Amino acid sequence: MTSDFQVPPSLSIKGNEAVAKDILSRIWGKRGVFTCTVANTLTSTIPGVSEAGDTPELTLFTPAADAELLVLGKTVCMKGIPINPGGIPTPATLTIAALNLSGIQSHVINAGCKIVPNIPFYDVGGTYGEAITCGKSVKDVEMLYERGKILGELFAKDNDFIVISESCAGGTTTAMAVMMAMGVMKENLVSSSSPNNPKELKTNLVNEAFRNAGISIGSLADDPLKAIECVGDPMIAVNAGMVVGASKHVPVIIGGGTQMAAVIAVAVGMDDSCVGNIFQGTTRWLVEDRNSDIEKIIAGIHKDVPLIYVNMDYSKSPYEGLQAYEWGFIKEGVGCGGSSVAAIISSSGKITCDDLLEEVHRLYRNILHIE
Amino acid sequence: MTSDFQVPPSLSIKGNEAVAKDILSRIWGKRGVFTCTVANTLTSTIPGVSEAGDTPELTLFTPAADAELLVLGKTVCMKGIPINPGGIPTPATLTIAALNLSGIQSHVINAGCKIVPNIPFYDVGGTYGEAITCGKSVKDVEMLYERGKILGELFAKDNDFIVISESCAGGTTTAMAVMMAMGVMKENLVSSSSPNNPKELKTNLVNEAFRNAGISIGSLADDPLKAIECVGDPMIAVNAGMVVGASKHVPVIIGGGTQMAAVIAVAVGMDDSCVGNIFQGTTRWLVEDRNSDIEKIIAGIHKDVPLIYVNMDYSKSPYEGLQAYEWGFIKEGVGCGGSSVAAIISSSGKITCDDLLEEVHRLYRNILHIE
Repeated sequence: MTSDFQVPPSLSIKGNEAVAKDILSRIWGKRGVFTCTVANTLTSTIPGVSEAGDTPELTLFTPAADAELLVLGKTVCMKGIPINPGGIPTPATLTIAALNLSGIQSHVINAGCKIVPNIPFYDVGGTYGEAITCGKSVKDVEMLYERGKILGELFAKDNDFIVISESCAGGTTTAMAVMMAMGVMKENLVSSSSPNNPKELKTNLVNEAFRNAGISIGSLADDPLKAIECVGDPMIAVNAGMVVGASKHVPVIIGGGTQMAAVIAVAVGMDDSCVGNIFQGTTRWLVEDRNSDIEKIIAGIHKDVPLIYVNMDYSKSPYEGLQAYEWGFIKEGVGCGGSSVAAIISSSGKITCDDLLEEVHRLYRNILHIE
Repeated sequence: MTSDFQVPPSLSIKGNEAVAKDILSRIWGKRGVFTCTVANTLTSTIPGVSEAGDTPELTLFTPAADAELLVLGKTVCMKGIPINPGGIPTPATLTIAALNLSGIQSHVINAGCKIVPNIPFYDVGGTYGEAITCGKSVKDVEMLYERGKILGELFAKDNDFIVISESCAGGTTTAMAVMMAMGVMKENLVSSSSPNNPKELKTNLVNEAFRNAGISIGSLADDPLKAIECVGDPMIAVNAGMVVGASKHVPVIIGGGTQMAAVIAVAVGMDDSCVGNIFQGTTRWLVEDRNSDIEKIIAGIHKDVPLIYVNMDYSKSPYEGLQAYEWGFIKEGVGCGGSSVAAIISSSGKITCDDLLEEVHRLYRNILHIE
């Protein structure tokens, strides 16, 4: 069954193909639930770190705005929708398209926001993170992880699989710091929502954070939660707990880019029994990004955590804001890859990249009021 | 199909049988989700009002403790489980039994707690209510109602029906006040968790609340949200919104006693298009209560909102704490009736009252550590 499982052209696999096909064969045509965990850290307000927002200050509004878009189809905490400088729209547009077409239920989890979304959301009692440079970024990490585990168990009940994801500006920097503190990544391989990935700045910030935390590369290999407490963000703690809690019962799609790789690193570090029941669900844009290396990052965590990505292509889109995804902007976020992979899975492949693109165009016109 | 729908012996119907059987036939054997909305009001701390707690102060802990029991199977905010004076255990024991046997997913919604449960919960931005005697009990009622509507829409997605319920000590008094302000109830017909229903005290408190709010019986017939703001509780606002939001898409089981009748009154008052797609799901204990009249209350709201109750009988239970339900204690709460009705529906009647009783006994022994 597994070996001869036919993967549709909308999807591609990297890494352990046997594990990927085994999981796909178990959840193909089945029912899943989508969750998006939002959080702030003041790291995103350090000029140059994050482009998930038109200005450093606006990056704090991006998670709340993405959450409002997911639940309401419009934003309340800000005017318009989150955009990168240059007017490139949030990847939530693709996420919403995938959820609309598949009918998959979605829930927002607030891991710790400074700007709180104006919607009902799952609260885990978290507070927003500090700038990692202080070396003491996240409070109550163990509680966040434990409550994430409870949420994972809860959502696994009566569902065949769950998708977890994130919106946390500045998250690639905290993800890089956590993976380096754990020693699963030795050099900066993380992505950016900009084609001009500010690698030197991120590396300098992580070095400063390590100095102030009194840690070094790999020194927290055996204490993933401590790595989050020192140089991580609240999203990683909650989502890692969800992976561990849910994967005991059902497969978990870790939806997102290098930020979610840190979630995998922590989850595997806390309880590697999740391996074999999880894969990373992402986009072609991220996998093909020349400025990051998601395959190498995941391989550094565990050889049996495969990557399944959706072959979305915006190059023929009439909208420049979407074409920009092909030029290296955005690439991932708000579980756009994981939700697309989930929509294709739950529909037994009936939903295709063309269907998703058409719905993205419809949403894009509605949201940006284009005729 | 509807007319010849066979109701199993575990269930009975009161009120409009055609509507009841129509809804049952549409959701029989289908998939539902259970929600419990918890809140505090200082009304429960007025001596004599509530017995949902060993002392007036402990009644504030009861909703949080019930929520923790539902999610964790144990309490964190207090030692032991919520009990009435005399050691009668919370009806959550039956709710958990129904959820265990049916595998129905459950979610806790915090409408406004002073004592917050130590679990992940859905937050709607509410704050706890004042004592109704002040005549200005609940803040942000419109926001709570609107967010309830969003939650109803959200849970209706990818589910065939939803169950709503409550744990809000002192709630029969606020429910009575709201229904009288709306004029759907002219006299005190509400229930109590005690066989010695303190009717005179409740009536005096409601009269004082009406004086201080400057309202009279029926004066807020056209403004249900104002009735909640003056003399209600946060639970009613959120749950009424959920009824309106969810019933546009799927049937809604309003699980509970006279407190949930107030939810029906407000929902029907705000948008009576929900009628025909809702019924109250409760227990034989409540329907047979000599000190209240749920049938008359519902009839006063709308003739086409039927009542479906589970024929649980604890008279042969070896445990006095459970036998007490037959003597007029507890009767309802934490959606024990609605979740039992839902378990029977989702299992196409395979789950019976005997099955539920057996599971309640197992839980009772575990929770109270009885051999």
